Amino acid sequence: MAIHISEVKNNIGKEVAVHGFAQVIRDQGKIAFIQLRDVSGLIQIVVTKEDMSVLETAQSLSLESVIEVTGLAKEAAQAQGGIEIEAKKIVVISMAEPELPIPLFEKGSQEEADQSVRLDWRFIDLRKPKNTLIFKVWTAMEQAFREYWTSNGYIEIHSPKLISTASETGAEVFEVKYFDRKAYLAQSPQFYKQMANAAGFEKVFEVGPVFRAEPSFTTRHATEFVGYDAEWSYINSHEDVMAEEEKTIAYVVEKVKAQYGEQIKELCDREVVVPTLPFPRISIADAKVILKERGVPSEKEGDLSPEEERAIAAYALEKYNNEFVFITDYPISVRPFYHMRHEDNPGLTKSFDLLWNGLEITTGAQREHRYDVLIAQAKEKGMNLEHLEFYTNFFRYGCPPHGGYGMGPNRMLMKLMNLENVREASFVYRGVKRLTP
Amino acid sequence: MAIHISEVKNNIGKEVAVHGFAQVIRDQGKIAFIQLRDVSGLIQIVVTKEDMSVLETAQSLSLESVIEVTGLAKEAAQAQGGIEIEAKKIVVISMAEPELPIPLFEKGSQEEADQSVRLDWRFIDLRKPKNTLIFKVWTAMEQAFREYWTSNGYIEIHSPKLISTASETGAEVFEVKYFDRKAYLAQSPQFYKQMANAAGFEKVFEVGPVFRAEPSFTTRHATEFVGYDAEWSYINSHEDVMAEEEKTIAYVVEKVKAQYGEQIKELCDREVVVPTLPFPRISIADAKVILKERGVPSEKEGDLSPEEERAIAAYALEKYNNEFVFITDYPISVRPFYHMRHEDNPGLTKSFDLLWNGLEITTGAQREHRYDVLIAQAKEKGMNLEHLEFYTNFFRYGCPPHGGYGMGPNRMLMKLMNLENVREASFVYRGVKRLTP
Repeated sequence: MAIHISEVKNNIGKEVAVHGFAQVIRDQGKIAFIQLRDVSGLIQIVVTKEDMSVLETAQSLSLESVIEVTGLAKEAAQAQGGIEIEAKKIVVISMAEPELPIPLFEKGSQEEADQSVRLDWRFIDLRKPKNTLIFKVWTAMEQAFREYWTSNGYIEIHSPKLISTASETGAEVFEVKYFDRKAYLAQSPQFYKQMANAAGFEKVFEVGPVFRAEPSFTTRHATEFVGYDAEWSYINSHEDVMAEEEKTIAYVVEKVKAQYGEQIKELCDREVVVPTLPFPRISIADAKVILKERGVPSEKEGDLSPEEERAIAAYALEKYNNEFVFITDYPISVRPFYHMRHEDNPGLTKSFDLLWNGLEITTGAQREHRYDVLIAQAKEKGMNLEHLEFYTNFFRYGCPPHGGYGMGPNRMLMKLMNLENVREASFVYRGVKRLTP
Repeated sequence: MAIHISEVKNNIGKEVAVHGFAQVIRDQGKIAFIQLRDVSGLIQIVVTKEDMSVLETAQSLSLESVIEVTGLAKEAAQAQGGIEIEAKKIVVISMAEPELPIPLFEKGSQEEADQSVRLDWRFIDLRKPKNTLIFKVWTAMEQAFREYWTSNGYIEIHSPKLISTASETGAEVFEVKYFDRKAYLAQSPQFYKQMANAAGFEKVFEVGPVFRAEPSFTTRHATEFVGYDAEWSYINSHEDVMAEEEKTIAYVVEKVKAQYGEQIKELCDREVVVPTLPFPRISIADAKVILKERGVPSEKEGDLSPEEERAIAAYALEKYNNEFVFITDYPISVRPFYHMRHEDNPGLTKSFDLLWNGLEITTGAQREHRYDVLIAQAKEKGMNLEHLEFYTNFFRYGCPPHGGYGMGPNRMLMKLMNLENVREASFVYRGVKRLTP
């Protein structure tokens, strides 16, 4: 029964079996060394000529072949980690072809290989410990979110991704051939979360794919990515939404740091910081004033460009020592019809974005639950009320006030682990020009 | 600060505030009774003429309006649950229109209302406590699966749903307009789970939507549903896959029973049974013999019809006292090219289905990880090797032996809660003729 490489250190002096990929093979004629990698780590395997057939097997291996090694676990000062296995038996489980299609562990292979080629051979690129770590961290991060949600009474929903009309925000959607008619791919579960609130599910969350047919080629956009969405009832305003969201995030970051903080530091050179609460809140109007004072040009009224996001985040870090900052109270011109508006300032919505180290990771708001007001706002925005009827019906038969947020875990991972590009934070990236692998 | 209705019993003699939907209103002129429902339960509200404005508010309410009630929590022998709240204040949060579009709490409303109309007004139908319970149970079930997986070293993946070729099984797929080309919706994450194994992720799981463009109108099919998928490396055969899956399921059922067993018994008349391990295993060949002895007609060679599934499950329940039964070793004719075949009987695959009380809830197998064998099997099945190249490449550069399963949580819910139809076990159902709400 094979054990993980990380467990070998607890078995010094014993015979152990391990399996994994032959990452490095050094053949010195009468002795060979293999660096063997599994999901838990790396270990040196020593193969001597004591049993020539074992040495010959080692010498015949191609890089990245999968083998099982049985042998004596022992301390070895010169080996990485201070331990090695003296091989008594090597079984070749899966021999790799002699030439890998992309460089893997050569120095600089991450930076030098063309990213597009690395994505073509994603399954090989993911073998790098840093890339594997991204998805270990994702697993821990998602589980922490879910622990928070499920232990706080949220009900999980899985809403349909195939929808009949392309009506939510007017942003571009993918069209699907659905038997003898057309369907569309959901851009977000927003309306379905609200349906759950109208059904009396007081708190809900969803994790699932969202689809955006936008021809964006930036480092932070994809045509398909994962959304974390939460929505709950009986709030007083968007302030309640922010207060709950920041609590959730602090819980998650603390959990991830406890489990993977050291590895993230080692492999990503990033010290994960558990944020203090509350996160600073800056209205978009105030943010524009601050940015102007700092000489950052305003590209769009009432909204922040990526450059402005980075600049206001730098300001929040200086002034409040917090990597996170909520930008609040966006004008109605840049928000969808269903965001609730301030009673005392109907030009502003009860909405917010959350930035983490300068990147927008979430959008949230209190939603308008009063049928007449909602219809008026939809008309004002020029929405097709017939297409929206299935949605506006939610507010006709009793519906609690509610609000929530949508969050991008791919972007959270970028900030958790100092990744430059959303492509690296996606198991398999999808973009305008990329549908493979 | 409002509390949940389920907490009122801990506040007898105190003033409390609760909010929810006015499910029943009995106006007796000088006194009124409201049955108020929130996500946690139901409580009687008594409104006397002590404060006429409060009584008038109560009398003006339409059914299913959302209100907040403040008043004295007291014991009341005649009330359901033995407690009630004497209202001092009622705030109308959201007044419902006077006529609900579907019957909700009238006797027999579940059975008598046309299912299709109930699905049209799904958000109202979900207000029934039994329907809400389905998604509370789903939440607990999914969390239990994830607890098992994450505490046993599985890495979570989110694979793309937009894919470039429609090649996995040849079953019908949905076509998507993807900028200037075509894409397809993934029928399963099978190939991507295996990609993760080839990347050295030794154990993986995924939860996500799957899409099937099959014109099926049965009680157990949908065009979009949720899939639970797991896949892991270094197995010896499909026996290892079954052993791990049954452990996972027993863990999950035990957790769900502990949390919701009583409510499931009360609302669904179903005593949840934690299964004993191992589940019985019956080869498809033996199953056919048993079914023949029992006079059940065989519709298709090497596979079971729904009637045969129910009959073999009845046999397993009688003989092994287990609601679960694995059917194993399906012939290659009914299995995809990537299922591994028995060395000693190459006409049979190392595969299985799992039935729960007569319904197929999962399919699993050891996968063929040897490149040459895989190519030969794909050719034999007439697959397009060019379309499959992105997949078959996974096996060229070292790949551990691996296997796994795909499971349908909607179907699991049907069996956990005695639901007749997958439509009831879907938050929002999608079928050939249904793309709304």
